[in-house]
Amino acid sequence: LYDFVQLSPESRNYKGIAISLLVIVAVCSLITMSVFVLTPGTVPNRGPRDLMEFICREHFTKNVLYPFTDSEVLYRNRDGHVIKFNFALNETEMILRNSTFVSFKVAKYSLSPDMKYVLFAYEVKQVYRHSYTAAYIVYNIHTREVWELNPPEVQNAVLQHAAWGVKGQQLIYIFENNIYYQSDVQSNSLRITSSGEEGVIFNGIADWLYEEEILQSHIAHWLSPDGERLAFLMINDTLVPTMFLPRFTGSPYPRSQEYPYPKAGQPNPTVRLLVVNLYGPTHTQELVPPDGLRGREHYVSMVKWISNTHAAVRWLNRPQNVSFLTVCDATVGSCVQKHEEASDLWLTRQNQKPVFSKDRSRFFLTIPVKQGGQGDFHHIAMFTKSFRSDQNDVRHLTSGNWEVTKILAYDEGEQTIYFISTQDSPQKRHVYSASTIGLFSQRCLTCEMNQEACAFFDADISPNKQHVILQCKGKVCAFSFWISFSQIQLYVVKPNLFWVIYETWLGSNYAMIDGGPGSQSVSDEYELGWDSVLVSSDEVIVARLDGRGTGFRGLRVLQQVHQRLGTVDVQDQIAALDYLMTLPYIDRARIGIYGKGYGAYLTLMLLRSTALIKCAAANSPVVDWKLYASAFSERYFGLTSKNDNRYQVSRVLPNMKGLQGNMMKGPQGPDFLLIHGTADANVHFQHSAELIKHLIKIGANYTMQVRLYPDEGHFLSLQSQKHLSESLVGYFRTCFQDFSTPLPEEIGKEDDD
Amino acid sequence: LYDFVQLSPESRNYKGIAISLLVIVAVCSLITMSVFVLTPGTVPNRGPRDLMEFICREHFTKNVLYPFTDSEVLYRNRDGHVIKFNFALNETEMILRNSTFVSFKVAKYSLSPDMKYVLFAYEVKQVYRHSYTAAYIVYNIHTREVWELNPPEVQNAVLQHAAWGVKGQQLIYIFENNIYYQSDVQSNSLRITSSGEEGVIFNGIADWLYEEEILQSHIAHWLSPDGERLAFLMINDTLVPTMFLPRFTGSPYPRSQEYPYPKAGQPNPTVRLLVVNLYGPTHTQELVPPDGLRGREHYVSMVKWISNTHAAVRWLNRPQNVSFLTVCDATVGSCVQKHEEASDLWLTRQNQKPVFSKDRSRFFLTIPVKQGGQGDFHHIAMFTKSFRSDQNDVRHLTSGNWEVTKILAYDEGEQTIYFISTQDSPQKRHVYSASTIGLFSQRCLTCEMNQEACAFFDADISPNKQHVILQCKGKVCAFSFWISFSQIQLYVVKPNLFWVIYETWLGSNYAMIDGGPGSQSVSDEYELGWDSVLVSSDEVIVARLDGRGTGFRGLRVLQQVHQRLGTVDVQDQIAALDYLMTLPYIDRARIGIYGKGYGAYLTLMLLRSTALIKCAAANSPVVDWKLYASAFSERYFGLTSKNDNRYQVSRVLPNMKGLQGNMMKGPQGPDFLLIHGTADANVHFQHSAELIKHLIKIGANYTMQVRLYPDEGHFLSLQSQKHLSESLVGYFRTCFQDFSTPLPEEIGKEDDD
Repeated sequence: LYDFVQLSPESRNYKGIAISLLVIVAVCSLITMSVFVLTPGTVPNRGPRDLMEFICREHFTKNVLYPFTDSEVLYRNRDGHVIKFNFALNETEMILRNSTFVSFKVAKYSLSPDMKYVLFAYEVKQVYRHSYTAAYIVYNIHTREVWELNPPEVQNAVLQHAAWGVKGQQLIYIFENNIYYQSDVQSNSLRITSSGEEGVIFNGIADWLYEEEILQSHIAHWLSPDGERLAFLMINDTLVPTMFLPRFTGSPYPRSQEYPYPKAGQPNPTVRLLVVNLYGPTHTQELVPPDGLRGREHYVSMVKWISNTHAAVRWLNRPQNVSFLTVCDATVGSCVQKHEEASDLWLTRQNQKPVFSKDRSRFFLTIPVKQGGQGDFHHIAMFTKSFRSDQNDVRHLTSGNWEVTKILAYDEGEQTIYFISTQDSPQKRHVYSASTIGLFSQRCLTCEMNQEACAFFDADISPNKQHVILQCKGKVCAFSFWISFSQIQLYVVKPNLFWVIYETWLGSNYAMIDGGPGSQSVSDEYELGWDSVLVSSDEVIVARLDGRGTGFRGLRVLQQVHQRLGTVDVQDQIAALDYLMTLPYIDRARIGIYGKGYGAYLTLMLLRSTALIKCAAANSPVVDWKLYASAFSERYFGLTSKNDNRYQVSRVLPNMKGLQGNMMKGPQGPDFLLIHGTADANVHFQHSAELIKHLIKIGANYTMQVRLYPDEGHFLSLQSQKHLSESLVGYFRTCFQDFSTPLPEEIGKEDDD
Repeated sequence: LYDFVQLSPESRNYKGIAISLLVIVAVCSLITMSVFVLTPGTVPNRGPRDLMEFICREHFTKNVLYPFTDSEVLYRNRDGHVIKFNFALNETEMILRNSTFVSFKVAKYSLSPDMKYVLFAYEVKQVYRHSYTAAYIVYNIHTREVWELNPPEVQNAVLQHAAWGVKGQQLIYIFENNIYYQSDVQSNSLRITSSGEEGVIFNGIADWLYEEEILQSHIAHWLSPDGERLAFLMINDTLVPTMFLPRFTGSPYPRSQEYPYPKAGQPNPTVRLLVVNLYGPTHTQELVPPDGLRGREHYVSMVKWISNTHAAVRWLNRPQNVSFLTVCDATVGSCVQKHEEASDLWLTRQNQKPVFSKDRSRFFLTIPVKQGGQGDFHHIAMFTKSFRSDQNDVRHLTSGNWEVTKILAYDEGEQTIYFISTQDSPQKRHVYSASTIGLFSQRCLTCEMNQEACAFFDADISPNKQHVILQCKGKVCAFSFWISFSQIQLYVVKPNLFWVIYETWLGSNYAMIDGGPGSQSVSDEYELGWDSVLVSSDEVIVARLDGRGTGFRGLRVLQQVHQRLGTVDVQDQIAALDYLMTLPYIDRARIGIYGKGYGAYLTLMLLRSTALIKCAAANSPVVDWKLYASAFSERYFGLTSKNDNRYQVSRVLPNMKGLQGNMMKGPQGPDFLLIHGTADANVHFQHSAELIKHLIKIGANYTMQVRLYPDEGHFLSLQSQKHLSESLVGYFRTCFQDFSTPLPEEIGKEDDD
């Protein structure tokens, strides 16, 4: 019914049919497909395939792995049971039956450090990207007793966060922006803070800005390794303007919501970093920012305990071009500067946690290091306390025109550092080790594994550095899907533009607004999206293009977009499209484009600049960076006061006449699909509203369809995600069909023979 | 480019092409096209055509006619000048030059009763259907001086209303829900009320409910004929729940609006009717409701001064099935009951103003009168004070299976009543006179005029009853448009269903939610809408269907929908569609439907019930009458407490699976277009949001397009109206093309010969 091109099956000709091209500009989440365990040093001798296949067979559903001990790993198997697997003894033990989950209608679970209790979360409601509210119960695995987790004098509490501490049955939770602590499941809750106020003062929990742009987590508190001290941020949004999120459904008189959201140039939240002693007197110690930032607007972008009394803290100025890594003594509140970073553009990886030696005399960090004429790449620097001066002695352990993406662990006994890098290819991620002495000799721990099995790894190193959990994010356990795609798999690699026509998905590493600067579209990371349907069942090629602004290819590539988002990155997309146009199997009349968030922004900018595109879908587009978050916009454009013209240049709206001119007309008019949740707290519906209003104002003469998700946020509900996937597949199918040209008869006849 | 059916011009065959059918269910505003003046009694002898042509030539732009004296009429001509036309002397005089309007950027104007001053409104912003805010200046025509109209101590005031009084230079205006009075343009403003509070207490101005559903006007104050007393409503919305209207555009942090809106079953505003003496002591006299309603929820649905001290007032209970017409003595506040109405269903015409004799001993009213076995029709009743009892003597001046739509005036000298009725045809409106003595002999004043010239009149009678302004709402001054349509004009009249295939538009008389019960789709009233484009340039027939629930055909037809909106009226639409299907020139594969407001509700209900419809557009649909205004929903369903199942039956949502099943699939999937302004204060965007959410939930598998008008209300801005018109034409063109079937070749060849 849908197929307009192929009216009769006998005229179908796979060789002859011109292929539509759908360009996916942007990206969002990543799907974890499988995990396997192996022992470093014995790879690949001990046969990781066996282990891998074992765990693949068990088919983890979610929350795959629990922080593990040196011989044990926890996972939930395909039947929903929680299993403890001792890989030293090759023994499994069932910790929790699946029926427990059903009877409590549990959405999330977590085992106490002593493995005697489970914390169950139910009635989970997503808030922003990472945050959610839920009700919690504590379950005694042995006695099957349950307790509700409630602050004193409160019933049926909806908490913003709850988790086990680091020892025994310690519990920490957040309620109404205040931190509560229980030393064990039976004890009374202790209220650690009292200043919390909804939408105003946030204790131990991030406001929208810190969650999305600074910490990339909603958790803003950190327990010391001995569980005796708690560091937490007190984020003060008193001066931050609030944004409305309208509500339309669910009751006769739905109420709108308000929350603080600093747009570019608006007052930012202020932040204090405090430490409370959980067992001693309840004195709260403030950790003071370095002299260079005291009294000036700044962010706390990273906090990590490096001993029971000392924490590493990174302080970042508001323009995000100067930062200080300090080590703070929580007993007195003083901080000593360990490393200063500065940039003419913007600083990268500001929430990266340094890896310290036990005695704190040495630490490791990835920092930009100049690689001859090729610009800076992120490499591992080892900072060692100098005996001769106050300064650290800095050694660069790695080098080359590739990047270290993550430092995993430092094995002091073996004097080895473990890390993940792109050395093999910017599209791949392998686990490496390097010696911290001598010539820093380096080896790849995962490269010798069958590349067909896995080319994109993440890893966790066990406490005693004896084991690693390797998480394969590309090509493992996905064989059943894979086979159908591989038939039409198609690589075209042009190294100077970094792009590939490919049917997989990207993963953002240094997580940002979907597909913004520093993310990567072209990688071996596995993804199964709506576009896979087009690839596998329609004659559509999906191309993902990484241009300037992409991460993992050095800072020169990344920072080309400084103060000019939507310009050079758009040029690169066009250059890639122009090249694609020269390929014989591409149908030039049927080019589509899709993007979300930053990708939707690029989609709109691209439409203004090229007439190649016939079908376009923009999901939650940003149309004006002045309306977007301060910490994002200011990172790339600088403060609004000084850089107003830069913001202007990157706006979508003033030149939308270009979009109108460039959208080609099909039989039903040119086609543009706009998608947005009306309660999007990240890219406000405001952006789409301004776009629609502008298009009405200029009398745009093409068909703009709108897919509206009432009361949904930037991250749609599962039901709406499903609807959107079907919607997008339908949209591109229809749009490509509208632009189809009948096949020449000769080709059709060839096929009939 | 658009035309998919006719690929080559030579294969075009007008005779052979099947015609699509677009059913327009509902309706909204009416466009006044022309006006002419004639003298009753001399019609048609004095040649109304000459006058008509004179005024047609002058081509009124808007605000066509000013309340007129016995020999003068005011209008604005096509050049924008305001002209006083003395039709006794056949002289014209320019009162205001067009340049005055330009220099003050004026949107509305009004002349003082003494014709010396003009009140200019600028920066006019629409609020609800009738209301708007504006700034005002008073302009001296002679000296060209101007004054801003501001309350004491306020500058640049934005007023909710301002108008001249009845004498000299009296001015009355409303600011922040309080009434202000000026005895002349130079004098100080007197604040009449002080209790006004935004969204809470409304003095002299209607809240949303009174404006839309009760008074059908935002003006809730009335000056006595001598200008000395002011009656006004004090509407108290303290207990009425407020609804949010979101704002998305115009600033970085747009603010939502809140206003009281009682949904079905929610607390209603309370109302008090007060009279203030403008020249005597500032004592405020309350007019007390009749005993039957005192202390019970009620509306004041009509206020009309019938002498300098007495006002006629209608009081209506909340269920709208009992009302009392009283005459109140404003000097003491007491009211005497003149007429009681009661109904098992609901009372009609509750804001109808009775026409009283000067001595108040007699009054005229249209009331439902049983016409044999045909049920009740609205006819004129004459109520005369009985000399024998306290009761009125009631005489029915008209009768028959047709309706009096409006009483125009009572000429006491001639003992004649003037009125408009549907006696000639339910589709027409003519002006009649009837004697109030003897056999009540009746004559039609406009029927003998050329029916081609005008078949749908409205009229104003001059104070001395010597002249009438006839406003033609159908077929005059429209010749230039008309000719192109008349070629394909097509009548099919089936009297028992009251419908017609016709290319004009309906006008609602007893104004309600667009096209709700009591409105009429099939009439001779003229309209030029977006659908006219389809009729004149595409091969599309537009049919308007009036089924049960329609007005002007007696109460039996009207009140069939009692407690079952969306049931019998939908059945009638289907019956009509079924009949249309039997016509040879209708293409059964291409039936579309469009409706707004109530019409959009019917559109959705119709889609659930029939598989005939391929393309559907619903503009601001109601999906649940519990979410709509109390006074509307309760009128038809009763109070929510007793009639919950009735509300359930008429809901759109629970049975939307039917919609899904019935929407046929085209090559791009079945097509459904939803249109809504996000700040619609009448039918909240909530309705569309609930619909979309429900369709996502049930996984509806057809294409739903949404046309969203950000921050626009139920009545779109001119720019958006234009956009919507183009959008609708484009939508139906595309959708009809998608369902087109290629022409049989034989027919194409016939045409080539």
